[in-house]
Amino acid sequence: MFKEAIYHRPKDNFAYAYDEKTLHIRLRTKKDDVEAVHLLYADPYEWKDGVWQLNRAPMVKSGFDDLFDYWFIEVIPPYRRLRYGFELTSGNEKIVYTEKGFYHEAPTDDTAYYFCFPFLNKIDVFHAPEWVKDTVWYQIFPERFANGNPAIDPEGTLPWASEDPTPTSFFGGDLEGIIQHLDYLVDLGVNGIYLTPIFHAPSNHKYDTTNYFEIDPHFGDKQTFKKLVDLCHEKGIRVMLDAVFNHCGYYFAPFQDVLKNGEASKYKDWFHIHEFPLQTTPRPNYDAFAFVAQMPKLNTENPEVKKYLLDVAAYWIQEFDIDGWRLDVANEIDHQFWREFRQVVKSMKPDVYILGEIWHDAMPWLRGDQFDAVMNYPFTNGAIRFFAKNEIGAKQFANIITNVLHSYPENVNEVAFHLLGSHDTPRILTVCDNDVRKVKLLFLFQLSFTGSPCIYYGDEIGMTGGQDPGCRKCMVWEEEKQNRDILEHVKKLIALRKAHPAFRRGKITFMDASDESNHLIYTKTYLDETILVMINNSSKEIDITVPLSLKGKWLVNLWTNEQFAAEAETLRAAIPPYSFLLYQIKNW
Amino acid sequence: MFKEAIYHRPKDNFAYAYDEKTLHIRLRTKKDDVEAVHLLYADPYEWKDGVWQLNRAPMVKSGFDDLFDYWFIEVIPPYRRLRYGFELTSGNEKIVYTEKGFYHEAPTDDTAYYFCFPFLNKIDVFHAPEWVKDTVWYQIFPERFANGNPAIDPEGTLPWASEDPTPTSFFGGDLEGIIQHLDYLVDLGVNGIYLTPIFHAPSNHKYDTTNYFEIDPHFGDKQTFKKLVDLCHEKGIRVMLDAVFNHCGYYFAPFQDVLKNGEASKYKDWFHIHEFPLQTTPRPNYDAFAFVAQMPKLNTENPEVKKYLLDVAAYWIQEFDIDGWRLDVANEIDHQFWREFRQVVKSMKPDVYILGEIWHDAMPWLRGDQFDAVMNYPFTNGAIRFFAKNEIGAKQFANIITNVLHSYPENVNEVAFHLLGSHDTPRILTVCDNDVRKVKLLFLFQLSFTGSPCIYYGDEIGMTGGQDPGCRKCMVWEEEKQNRDILEHVKKLIALRKAHPAFRRGKITFMDASDESNHLIYTKTYLDETILVMINNSSKEIDITVPLSLKGKWLVNLWTNEQFAAEAETLRAAIPPYSFLLYQIKNW
Ligand SMILES: [Ca+2]
Ligand SMILES: [Ca+2]
Repeated sequence: MFKEAIYHRPKDNFAYAYDEKTLHIRLRTKKDDVEAVHLLYADPYEWKDGVWQLNRAPMVKSGFDDLFDYWFIEVIPPYRRLRYGFELTSGNEKIVYTEKGFYHEAPTDDTAYYFCFPFLNKIDVFHAPEWVKDTVWYQIFPERFANGNPAIDPEGTLPWASEDPTPTSFFGGDLEGIIQHLDYLVDLGVNGIYLTPIFHAPSNHKYDTTNYFEIDPHFGDKQTFKKLVDLCHEKGIRVMLDAVFNHCGYYFAPFQDVLKNGEASKYKDWFHIHEFPLQTTPRPNYDAFAFVAQMPKLNTENPEVKKYLLDVAAYWIQEFDIDGWRLDVANEIDHQFWREFRQVVKSMKPDVYILGEIWHDAMPWLRGDQFDAVMNYPFTNGAIRFFAKNEIGAKQFANIITNVLHSYPENVNEVAFHLLGSHDTPRILTVCDNDVRKVKLLFLFQLSFTGSPCIYYGDEIGMTGGQDPGCRKCMVWEEEKQNRDILEHVKKLIALRKAHPAFRRGKITFMDASDESNHLIYTKTYLDETILVMINNSSKEIDITVPLSLKGKWLVNLWTNEQFAAEAETLRAAIPPYSFLLYQIKNW
Repeated sequence: MFKEAIYHRPKDNFAYAYDEKTLHIRLRTKKDDVEAVHLLYADPYEWKDGVWQLNRAPMVKSGFDDLFDYWFIEVIPPYRRLRYGFELTSGNEKIVYTEKGFYHEAPTDDTAYYFCFPFLNKIDVFHAPEWVKDTVWYQIFPERFANGNPAIDPEGTLPWASEDPTPTSFFGGDLEGIIQHLDYLVDLGVNGIYLTPIFHAPSNHKYDTTNYFEIDPHFGDKQTFKKLVDLCHEKGIRVMLDAVFNHCGYYFAPFQDVLKNGEASKYKDWFHIHEFPLQTTPRPNYDAFAFVAQMPKLNTENPEVKKYLLDVAAYWIQEFDIDGWRLDVANEIDHQFWREFRQVVKSMKPDVYILGEIWHDAMPWLRGDQFDAVMNYPFTNGAIRFFAKNEIGAKQFANIITNVLHSYPENVNEVAFHLLGSHDTPRILTVCDNDVRKVKLLFLFQLSFTGSPCIYYGDEIGMTGGQDPGCRKCMVWEEEKQNRDILEHVKKLIALRKAHPAFRRGKITFMDASDESNHLIYTKTYLDETILVMINNSSKEIDITVPLSLKGKWLVNLWTNEQFAAEAETLRAAIPPYSFLLYQIKNW
């Protein structure tokens, strides 16, 4: 066996508390190198006649990617303590892998050799809100969703959808516009809305905050926002706001004070200023988001700044009862800040959702002390490369998804935020080169996958557009201009996701993935329900054998409601190009 | 190249802030598989004409162990942000390793492929007290160090050293005894003392605390302790106490209250009680240290308990100015508790040393938010297997030490607590089967190694004894009964460690390790000083070639003070069995 490929380190995604009683243990080995793995484990104080009383239990192969197999087991240690190692076998070969290295036989004269999960302390268990698992989000860019109150339009507002947006154009979208279209969202079936920033800021995107305690006057006022949240809650819709705490806007009063008073400003330590006087060109001589002088980075290590921002976080929960905070540029702010942020917001509202914007591997923020989830861009990236761009085949896609799932604990995956696009990426229909069939497959995969999916406003009606500002066009409200075909598809998927817990909470198992025919078959299983999804992501009709023994089962086509009893050992299915089949498998 | 063996994941020991400006990046590859590694890196916002402006810099091989090579580089990112990947070459083969996998050429159209160190926030930098790097500790088990005040001896106290200790015997050691022997410690050269628990407790070891706010009356009173700390500080000696917060003693008032009042006790949530009434046999029906009914586990998640214990931690700093807390059974207490503990004690005394008792890999406690160091038992274990027991050869020993050093960031290693034994292990002379030569080599390695070494009282005079209670005999004060040979050896080593920063702060490089002759040669380098250590850990004299080009250097034998100019290309050295040579290498 290939020792160099074997990896385990306690905590993070390899050994973690799934809940207050249960540990999950994972092991990574070289792909197809190991035939079986057993966990050797016991409480460290279980001794008899000088021999440590090891137990032995088989691990299951929970998946594989390009290079590795992953092994999994769940253990409930009776005294919440565990020492453990791994017995790996392949043919006649057997090795025991421990913290101290490899052995031929498992030592039982000492527990010091072994890996250690010292104690399952409840307070350290990763714990995210339960409702997130049952939520379908809808992301709204308020300036472009609907203009409900022309009286507060900014100067120079263009007629709705009269032209393509530029980085600086205004179309008059506002909170009242959202309120007026809540029925549309209810009809669509979403039960969470995520609003990009709504606080006072000069730009149309409002990531350059002027005042964190005020609603932007072009979006409305606090009464309107209160009405929006209350109406949403009445309709069973949660509301998440965008916390832009990494940087403020150029017109944020403390920054203006520093611009004016320089070193004498009492706010000079609110920022990271390299030298006085401040300069904005060629690059700002203060830390900023990227090198954008209009977005000075806040010094979140400064206790005054910390208090200010934590007060902001508390205020919008306390006064308006919001349900979540999405954290902009979350990984550029210190961990210490986020730990205190979590304590503040969770103490006010224990089931508030904390969602970080992190585009990379985010394990260090998902250890239970900081975020509940991150925007899972590695998922997005894989899905787009496979479905939208056909850059990778079905096998590689399954490997990417398996790899992402094994990068985090299961309880983290269960609340991960899965998006196909956002205000920061081109529209998916555009990425799919206007191929509606591909968009439908993307929605199918997203809405049958675990976690908390999010639809970017307008993607459900086939809006198009490239990278910002193209992806921020005005929402199309005229039904005849909407792609009703995509809309009905999305509504149907959301309805299925609601009706069948296996869609949202089911564990995914890749049954088959072919690079030749580019088809992908997976099941989602939750409790006693199994959903079978078969996707043909190629331009040719395929005729495949279902890789499951279904004899004696009922198959319900969830798309057509047809159902039939499987009588043969094997079943064959024909799937048109860029299409799919969706079955619920039921016992007789 | 062997892709499955290549490992990197940002943060922890692979990518971390060494200080407020500097990042350290490490990579692991299969041993002898890769010829060169270059870091590809840049600020994520450095673009020109749509191309990300990557830099390329060579990494150095910082060590190897049984299976792996380790590569290292230091980077100072001008804007504190970094994206990076690795270019690995071997012969004509070249691969680029990124977060998203392997490529033939480094992509420059997007930074999303790459590993991400988002921002170097100062507050998240691991930061331990500087003085710890220059400290040699002395661990005292107070009941057995010296009886300075017979008037407060417990009932049934035995005459000093009149017999071997049992688990329950008392010999009358106390704080006054330590005070009376401070000159001995000054003469030995140590400048830190670590006292096992001194708070009110019935046992001789006092890990079963009755009252955390009182000195045990058999050890003395608060005035005496204050005098001890003040005298130590006058003599440049720091004082560290033992915080037994995982569990209390059976006679701790809140536990007694629960025993008496059962479910009606207001302290019932201070513990983890499975059912009422409490039972102590056959196993306690409440959580305990191991299964020891006399040591009920405290519920450190309970805010009342947390406040109580944090008050304890603060009290002994505030009132007595102690310099460190050693945390007993530290890994069985929740991370949340330790994060708050750090905030409390560091806010009172920023350079207090927080030392956790963790016998296993302790990375999750050493991320800057919890401990400064752990008792580095993997070091102890390796040193004992090589020097004391000859269970492993020189190569494997060098590999173990290299592996331990690469398991943690460098700034963690610089303050690690390195012990050869403690009140929880057999005495080193006993482990060495009474071979004084081996004990001397152990002290040589420990006291020439990085971090903060600790001598267990009496080991320096050749005391013997097996596992507890054997290792807790009364300190031998009659000079004629002390092993003066070991004592002089230790004093000399401590003096050298003080005189030569390279001993304590130098980076270790293993130059040669032979399993045949069992010799080990390493250098310690700090700034412009290099120390060369050559150890013969075998029963035969060896005659070796020094694996360094020393021509044109002065060699100072630090043990004999002889010095000579190296004139030949190669130097040969003869080293007697279980002996060593120690040179300072100087330029002409
Ligand atoms: Ca408007
Ligand atoms: Ca006494």
